[in-house]
Amino acid sequence: MNTSPSPLPNYLAGRWQTGSGPGTLLRDPVLGTELARVSSGGLDLAEGFAFAREQGGRALRAMSYRERAALLAAAVKVLQTHRDAYYEIATANSGTTAKDSAVDIDGGIFTLGYYAKQGKALGDVRFMLDGRPARMGKDPSFQSQHVMVPTHGVALFINAFNFPSWGLWEKAAPALLSGVPVIVKPATATAWLTQRMVQDVIDAGVLPAGALSVVCGSSNGLMDALQPFDVVSFTGSAETAHVIRSHRAVTSESVRVNIEADSLNSALLAPDADADSEVFKLLVSELVREMTVKAGQKCTAIRRIFVPAALYDAAAQTIGAKLAGVTVGNPRNTSVRMGSLVSREQLDAVQAGLAQLRTQSEVLHDGASHALVDADPAIAACVGPTLLGTRQPSDVQMPHEIEVFGPVATLMPYASLDEALKLIRRGQGSLVTSLYCDDPAFIADAALELASMHGRVHAISPDVAATQSGHGNVMPMSLHGGPGRAGGGEELGGLRALNFYHRRCAVQASTAALQRLGASV
Amino acid sequence: MNTSPSPLPNYLAGRWQTGSGPGTLLRDPVLGTELARVSSGGLDLAEGFAFAREQGGRALRAMSYRERAALLAAAVKVLQTHRDAYYEIATANSGTTAKDSAVDIDGGIFTLGYYAKQGKALGDVRFMLDGRPARMGKDPSFQSQHVMVPTHGVALFINAFNFPSWGLWEKAAPALLSGVPVIVKPATATAWLTQRMVQDVIDAGVLPAGALSVVCGSSNGLMDALQPFDVVSFTGSAETAHVIRSHRAVTSESVRVNIEADSLNSALLAPDADADSEVFKLLVSELVREMTVKAGQKCTAIRRIFVPAALYDAAAQTIGAKLAGVTVGNPRNTSVRMGSLVSREQLDAVQAGLAQLRTQSEVLHDGASHALVDADPAIAACVGPTLLGTRQPSDVQMPHEIEVFGPVATLMPYASLDEALKLIRRGQGSLVTSLYCDDPAFIADAALELASMHGRVHAISPDVAATQSGHGNVMPMSLHGGPGRAGGGEELGGLRALNFYHRRCAVQASTAALQRLGASV
Repeated sequence: MNTSPSPLPNYLAGRWQTGSGPGTLLRDPVLGTELARVSSGGLDLAEGFAFAREQGGRALRAMSYRERAALLAAAVKVLQTHRDAYYEIATANSGTTAKDSAVDIDGGIFTLGYYAKQGKALGDVRFMLDGRPARMGKDPSFQSQHVMVPTHGVALFINAFNFPSWGLWEKAAPALLSGVPVIVKPATATAWLTQRMVQDVIDAGVLPAGALSVVCGSSNGLMDALQPFDVVSFTGSAETAHVIRSHRAVTSESVRVNIEADSLNSALLAPDADADSEVFKLLVSELVREMTVKAGQKCTAIRRIFVPAALYDAAAQTIGAKLAGVTVGNPRNTSVRMGSLVSREQLDAVQAGLAQLRTQSEVLHDGASHALVDADPAIAACVGPTLLGTRQPSDVQMPHEIEVFGPVATLMPYASLDEALKLIRRGQGSLVTSLYCDDPAFIADAALELASMHGRVHAISPDVAATQSGHGNVMPMSLHGGPGRAGGGEELGGLRALNFYHRRCAVQASTAALQRLGASV
Repeated sequence: MNTSPSPLPNYLAGRWQTGSGPGTLLRDPVLGTELARVSSGGLDLAEGFAFAREQGGRALRAMSYRERAALLAAAVKVLQTHRDAYYEIATANSGTTAKDSAVDIDGGIFTLGYYAKQGKALGDVRFMLDGRPARMGKDPSFQSQHVMVPTHGVALFINAFNFPSWGLWEKAAPALLSGVPVIVKPATATAWLTQRMVQDVIDAGVLPAGALSVVCGSSNGLMDALQPFDVVSFTGSAETAHVIRSHRAVTSESVRVNIEADSLNSALLAPDADADSEVFKLLVSELVREMTVKAGQKCTAIRRIFVPAALYDAAAQTIGAKLAGVTVGNPRNTSVRMGSLVSREQLDAVQAGLAQLRTQSEVLHDGASHALVDADPAIAACVGPTLLGTRQPSDVQMPHEIEVFGPVATLMPYASLDEALKLIRRGQGSLVTSLYCDDPAFIADAALELASMHGRVHAISPDVAATQSGHGNVMPMSLHGGPGRAGGGEELGGLRALNFYHRRCAVQASTAALQRLGASV
């Protein structure tokens, strides 16, 4: 393991380039040691973006979907051979347990592999037909056929610190499959894993020149380098989302933008549940898992739990007791279940957020009661899980507005389903909500009520207790994103992810010409 | 015809409300007379938006697509009974000939009727399944089904002056069909027709309360009234588009936005054409029509014409001769082919734009040479059609950047197809381009090359000379919109238009629950 602050080279314009200046140090969030340095200072971004746009784009677009899918499959093989190194980097730079590192590392590789398979099925074509030809009038000689073609630009990814691997590949897979070159700017705190994965893929020579670039460090100038046919996909805070969407490239040049921001995701226990029911147990175990996986640093984690009013105390007790058993500390100790937050800055932010939430809630389980295992509280960014609660959820605003990006959630009682739906809506749009219920009809009705304010509704019933994919797990076949507060973006969802990287166009022409396009006229 | 400046009432919060203050005068652009006054001063926008969102939204969402389609059909009937009044308003307020008024009035009613038919076929359901269920793993008991549900918000339309009828209905039809209430803010100069059509539909009582509102006059405060689940659709200038996209509602609350801005649409004569060919004639007649319909005030009009270099002089001569025969003036005189621009302000803008373009081009046919019929040049906003040309299209920037929103286009020669494609691309994204060619294979290949920078590619070959729908005509079954400079939006395209008013959500649940949704598990 490298513990001296060596600079991580950026890969841009088809060559490795070290940024100038002191850059920013990456640290081990548990031990406090220095790991590496990143800098994007002095890079010629215009050259790099032009190289990707011209060399990378042309090479990718010359291939069919099947050929590009083969590139993804080749990248999967490269990444698999280096898995051990990625786990070491994750432990050191993200402070995560092996199980949590897997969510990021293996989740990323799995998603890349998923798109390799999906893309293969698209076959040896370079564009997609969108629907069937439509007549423009009574005469069938002139019709309209919509097509989807790759945009002739680059895809810039400005990514979040919590998923340096998955966050790269869940976006890069559909972009590359679409024929669009990728430039990734990982979050600085955990940039190492992203940089290393890109380096391995580049060094293996499986991608055409310009198809994949990485810029670590400051994001200064990246948005300025965008042109009308480029796209930008951002994952992170609402504040940075605002900055990106306010940039001239977006407001004046119609650069397409996808935002996945934080949200106040919820869990809803069905009105007819009781404390001995299977669905109550399912809620408790799902919640405890969601609060502790990656120390709650997941944009999909449950932040608000709504239970029938009569179950508030029982839920508080049962969840609190389970949380009390969670070991917290150095992920290198195998007895530790929950590792570190990503940095001391993040720890400060979590403590500040908790202090705010506590002004409008009671503490049902206090994370401060957890002794740290093999970690110095003065150095490590570790914190125990905290369950808050409020008995008047309609009268308070903070639990519906303030997302503490750590192992923190707020329990709230509801009197009627209508009230529960109103409370969930106060999140102003979320990535995901989960239902705990054994009645398929209730699930279907509630899912439709909740659908317009969520990108995903996840229903857990006893019959799928063993097969359900988890409230917070983002699976590539389902949409990831959500309206309003959640940023309004759409990622994944199987081949739907390709839409963002394609342009739709209506080709109006003679039947003979549309036949040449392959249309079923 | 009303010639005294009476105030046009706004319809908001389910009642007619006259704005305070002097407002803005609407004039006859040919005669200069005052027609009406509009003002949105003093309106309680928050109340009006809440009324639409709550009353209108709830009522519309309670209906099925088939029931909402019946609303559209009923609105069509209402509008058809008042057609004569609309033509009178268009003549007076837009200065258009009857033929040009039809594009707006009958085009709008046709589009509304098209969606009434399409919507009927969607049946008695309140949401749409999006694709089939996808397995989340090997076990089939838990799957993901995507659904499309109407957003629980309002649709705000900020519209352009050139299509007060069609601009309303081409957006309102898919919004209402989706179950989303509409608030329309017409462009002030021609607000009368929009206001009158809304008034007729409201007075006929065919829509539920809150489903349709109209605010005439200033747009102050409209964007401030938007909330996260609302959407806004704008048609107009790149400058206003920038203001809308920079607004907090969009940048911070993820209000979904659709922009259709001006663009430098092109026409491309195939490389193998000669001056005696049928395709040459087709280009000439299509261009002259496009330049003169609505006096060139169409966002889809041809602004740049690319012909093989050898045909530059022949094209200049033939087009110029045809343009010379175009009669310009008062649309009330039946000998007049091309009516007025929409206002003296617009005339000034066209003259200023022409002066700019002339610094980088030669005048092949001068619009100033046209004597006006039954119109006073000191009062009327009439102008003859002008064909400009430049022999060095790669060396100049203005013809690719400056859109003169009137009867003005620039002829340019190209040496190779590759050069022509590069020149077209300098428009930085357009709504539409048209190809003039008799070879289906060439059309298919060129269409694919042009697709990524256009919302629509329109190919005219001799076999479809009589059936082709026209370069500039926006048909409801085809996408309307374009990347980059054209705003990046998507409208129409058949049922694709409904996407903007729906939210996509992945429902992950047991097979039993998905069956309740109607999924084919």
